Amino acid sequence: MRRLPLVLAAVAGFAISAVALAAIKPGTAVAYRQGVYHAILWNFVPMSDMVRGRTPWNQAEFAKRAERVSFYSRQLLEGFPPGSLTGRSEAKPGIWTHWPDFEARMQAFENASAAMAQTARGTDEAATKAAFAKTAETCKSCHDKYRRDD
Amino acid sequence: MRRLPLVLAAVAGFAISAVALAAIKPGTAVAYRQGVYHAILWNFVPMSDMVRGRTPWNQAEFAKRAERVSFYSRQLLEGFPPGSLTGRSEAKPGIWTHWPDFEARMQAFENASAAMAQTARGTDEAATKAAFAKTAETCKSCHDKYRRDD
Repeated sequence: MRRLPLVLAAVAGFAISAVALAAIKPGTAVAYRQGVYHAILWNFVPMSDMVRGRTPWNQAEFAKRAERVSFYSRQLLEGFPPGSLTGRSEAKPGIWTHWPDFEARMQAFENASAAMAQTARGTDEAATKAAFAKTAETCKSCHDKYRRDD
Repeated sequence: MRRLPLVLAAVAGFAISAVALAAIKPGTAVAYRQGVYHAILWNFVPMSDMVRGRTPWNQAEFAKRAERVSFYSRQLLEGFPPGSLTGRSEAKPGIWTHWPDFEARMQAFENASAAMAQTARGTDEAATKAAFAKTAETCKSCHDKYRRDD
């Protein structure tokens, strides 16, 4: 995050210098996609807590978070441009050598999240929980193959 | 990000242990809000580039990114719970001692972003650029007072 304040200050102040622009390039995609994953996690954990009965079921709260996850799911793919296996990235190189498969798994996450968000807008708690389980499976499918464990 | 893989694996695998849950608590809000700021920046820089004439104006592209920024702007405030001035946070303590003012500045950012997204859906390039400038001012207003520079 060390570079972020300078860049935001520059953008906000309409004073982007060539230096500031250059400064955000290395690792920007990594910071971006990890940021989106953090935002997903922020919403996913409370949903999981409800599904597992750790916290009381709240359909409206679940629906709100499911809607967010669905939004975030559509933002991830552009965070993996070629050449972005740098810095603190946990991505495996296979993402870029098996791009169509990676893309298909991301699409599966998008589809499952959208379905979950739609189901959550209703009143069927069991169906919502089932949709959550399906979504979680799409997370795991991609992580198992394309994320480093170390 | 070191803790994220374990936690996501646990959530996705429906095998959250007490250890894994405990692991995500310290600094989670910091990682979350910095993630959302990174996602904003990812979209804000290309918008700024268009406004400044560094890249060709593309109303549809601008509108897409403005819509995202508007979405993200509504996710930030919950990322500043009391006690979350930890780890790599760049927040100043004044956020919590002047909460109503901080909240008002966040609201100004939300309002400006929403207005920018609405304007961007139209065809008025000059009005869109003006809405961008207003939004950037709301960023700066908050950063100047509540973000550490170091």
